[in-house]
Amino acid sequence: MEPPRAFEDFAVGQRFRSARARAVGAAQIKTFAAEFDPQPFHLDEEAARRTPFGGLVASGWHTAALGMRLIVDSDLGLDGQGAGVAVENMRWRRPVRAGDALRVEGTVIEARASRSRPASGIVKFQTRLLNQRDEVVLEASHVVLVSRRSVPSGGAR
Amino acid sequence: MEPPRAFEDFAVGQRFRSARARAVGAAQIKTFAAEFDPQPFHLDEEAARRTPFGGLVASGWHTAALGMRLIVDSDLGLDGQGAGVAVENMRWRRPVRAGDALRVEGTVIEARASRSRPASGIVKFQTRLLNQRDEVVLEASHVVLVSRRSVPSGGAR
Repeated sequence: MEPPRAFEDFAVGQRFRSARARAVGAAQIKTFAAEFDPQPFHLDEEAARRTPFGGLVASGWHTAALGMRLIVDSDLGLDGQGAGVAVENMRWRRPVRAGDALRVEGTVIEARASRSRPASGIVKFQTRLLNQRDEVVLEASHVVLVSRRSVPSGGAR
Repeated sequence: MEPPRAFEDFAVGQRFRSARARAVGAAQIKTFAAEFDPQPFHLDEEAARRTPFGGLVASGWHTAALGMRLIVDSDLGLDGQGAGVAVENMRWRRPVRAGDALRVEGTVIEARASRSRPASGIVKFQTRLLNQRDEVVLEASHVVLVSRRSVPSGGAR
């Protein structure tokens, strides 16, 4: 088991990806929607056929949550070490349908000291969720606070 | 029952809010986390106490999904009529803990024709999720595609 990562372990340009894809089933789509996004195109195949989607599609928030799971399970190594600060510019590019299998690809685009929290750094990374046809379904930029291994003397600058 | 809303029914400055708050329990926090965000501070009280959060906190994606449910149940009237395009600048301001009760407040900040889809318009709205102490826990700007009641002749401009 690798030791937990700290802010110092992240560098701009670092790439990460899913170890494996995650399948999405109709039952999961409906269960998530019943709790968090009860709209016809997420709840019922027949009702969904009469909408512009033409069939059952996952809630965009279900897709985003699956994206988080794929990030946690990826080789980014952020598991248990980060605290989400923000998501900038999340875009749903294509619907996710029952039977799709999703994976994530990402790149660290920023790693800098936190002005307000000297014991932490800010790591920003871009992610793309792809389906089994390698089509992008979701893109987002994540901003995460990560503890530093060593805190610079003099505190925040 | 009101007729479904269309793009023409949304105007800049329109405000909306939850009919009622939704409570968040420890069991729900752990169930969501086990599926979508399995990190110690979302899964187990004892492990969470040893993290900077000092106790169990909801996954930020759980909070965001609850925000969607609050929007669907609000008087925005978007239920079944919108398709999420993007979320711009979502910020987690405070942790959500077991026992918190969340509500949403929002304002429509943009309503314009879609260049690429003449049968639809783009509606943008800002939301704030608040807890039972009226503290903001999450802020976001949502971009949604909404069908027009009447399509302008000549198509997109």
